[in-house]
Amino acid sequence: MNKQTDLAYFTEENSAAVVNARIDKTKAHPRMAEVIDALTRHLHAFIKEVEPTHEEWLTGIKFLTETGHMCTEWRQEFILLSDILGVSMLVDAINNRRPSGATENTILGPFYVANRPMLPNGDNICKDMKGEPCLVTGTVRDTEGRLIPGAVVDVWQTNDDGFYDVQQKGVQPEENMRGAFTTDAEGRYWFRTVKPRFYPIPDDGPVGKLLGQLGRHPFRAAHIHAIVTAEGYDTVITHIFEPNCRYLREDTVFGVKESLVGHFEKVEDTLEAAEAGFDGAPFFWKVQADWVLARSHGGKAIVHHV
Amino acid sequence: MNKQTDLAYFTEENSAAVVNARIDKTKAHPRMAEVIDALTRHLHAFIKEVEPTHEEWLTGIKFLTETGHMCTEWRQEFILLSDILGVSMLVDAINNRRPSGATENTILGPFYVANRPMLPNGDNICKDMKGEPCLVTGTVRDTEGRLIPGAVVDVWQTNDDGFYDVQQKGVQPEENMRGAFTTDAEGRYWFRTVKPRFYPIPDDGPVGKLLGQLGRHPFRAAHIHAIVTAEGYDTVITHIFEPNCRYLREDTVFGVKESLVGHFEKVEDTLEAAEAGFDGAPFFWKVQADWVLARSHGGKAIVHHV
Ligand SMILES: [Cu+2]
Ligand SMILES: [Fe+3]
Ligand SMILES: [Fe+3]
Repeated sequence: MNKQTDLAYFTEENSAAVVNARIDKTKAHPRMAEVIDALTRHLHAFIKEVEPTHEEWLTGIKFLTETGHMCTEWRQEFILLSDILGVSMLVDAINNRRPSGATENTILGPFYVANRPMLPNGDNICKDMKGEPCLVTGTVRDTEGRLIPGAVVDVWQTNDDGFYDVQQKGVQPEENMRGAFTTDAEGRYWFRTVKPRFYPIPDDGPVGKLLGQLGRHPFRAAHIHAIVTAEGYDTVITHIFEPNCRYLREDTVFGVKESLVGHFEKVEDTLEAAEAGFDGAPFFWKVQADWVLARSHGGKAIVHHV
Repeated sequence: MNKQTDLAYFTEENSAAVVNARIDKTKAHPRMAEVIDALTRHLHAFIKEVEPTHEEWLTGIKFLTETGHMCTEWRQEFILLSDILGVSMLVDAINNRRPSGATENTILGPFYVANRPMLPNGDNICKDMKGEPCLVTGTVRDTEGRLIPGAVVDVWQTNDDGFYDVQQKGVQPEENMRGAFTTDAEGRYWFRTVKPRFYPIPDDGPVGKLLGQLGRHPFRAAHIHAIVTAEGYDTVITHIFEPNCRYLREDTVFGVKESLVGHFEKVEDTLEAAEAGFDGAPFFWKVQADWVLARSHGGKAIVHHV
């Protein structure tokens, strides 16, 4: 620690240096000291760039306060803020630099439920009969192309009204639109659902208001969430995106990656539909979603739950 | 707007550019767009520098959430955070670049009460009889040295236990340690109080915990707050610092400026003490605090109140 800076009074010029000189490295949590040192530098550079008025600063304080007050057991407005500023995707990218060929990660989102039902392959996760029928089939392989039996493919999506079951407790059937499937001896899994649709992130709070002030819409490109796990492999937290969604190139949380855009084929054949498990349906969507897992290097998957 | 960037998917490399390209300048609030553009760039640069793990990111989300939940009508934890990171002082410095010779600003702090009592010169703001008696006298002048009659000097400080009255409602007498005085025809004001003492900022919340993790203490250098107002002049929001305070060079919110360190003289004379209004006191402190106001250039003083 520089004793000179340490004892200096605060001035506009040396602001960040004076603040950081106060960290007592002999007592501080080393990583926290490192993070706050960097935060202070970038925060002061930001303030110096925009030169906020006192009222603007207070607007920022009020925004953060309202965002905090919006957070409950079922609503995490700060994660939403992190999402719409691309911070969540950036943190995900930094932590999931996989070997090429392995399936890429994307945002987890706030609606994952850890206690999802384990279902047999072929089951239909759609329990409210709304939407266009959709059959998802695929394999789980390693980066050398070897099939992985016993891998778990955990999926969830909104219903056709654009809401997750946990957003509509008492309205949607229990565990609507979620379930986990296990790959068979040939590394295959399959399940029935409905074609995903775009939906807005919860935009009735401070983050929604901010989006409005930026001329941004609150919509996520249509997707099915998936977490793919297998022993000895890196967990993949990802999406299958619907290729024709109007919001594909402007997902409000920046979750779309080229490699995650799915292949959706419309099959207009009642016989094939019945064979796929959609009796009486005039058509269904056929989606192929293959996952490639990278060997784990000791790290463990993090699936937070708010 | 660059259509190329606008339609690009998010990658680690182009992260901030992709996020900012989503701002629709034809619909956005222009200043909000400017501020969020800068915030996103500095925030992404910060994330790229520290490369937080997913757990560390979640620690940050939880910290912000707890900070929000700590905020009530009487406690503003985000202002406290802004204070200990030097952001409040930086915003103040940017907005109060005064002509040399004028009294400098410092932090307002969260304990200002707008409805303070107007008192006659010489009154004692200390109503709980604790602490060492102190007589503050001074003048208000303009930058040309002309005395300003009718200026208002609004002062407040903690009691000798280190708490503001609003922190101890029902414990301290009403309006203890606060009052506003008006300069007389010669631009003079004077009042009685007690010698200020250092005190901790409220440190039982997330901000206090953060200070601990940085090896920092929660103490503010001993001070008397003052807001000096006069028609046609820039309002000065400032402090008188006690020169011998052990925390003078390490005020936890960085409020100390060389020019604001007061002159405190100990007068050990019972007669002079009685004359100053401290009957029976074996000694008292004599403080001279002169203020110099700059002509206002249209802006209006901002005294927020949480
Ligand atoms: Cu920066
Ligand atoms: Fe989703
Ligand atoms: Fe104070």
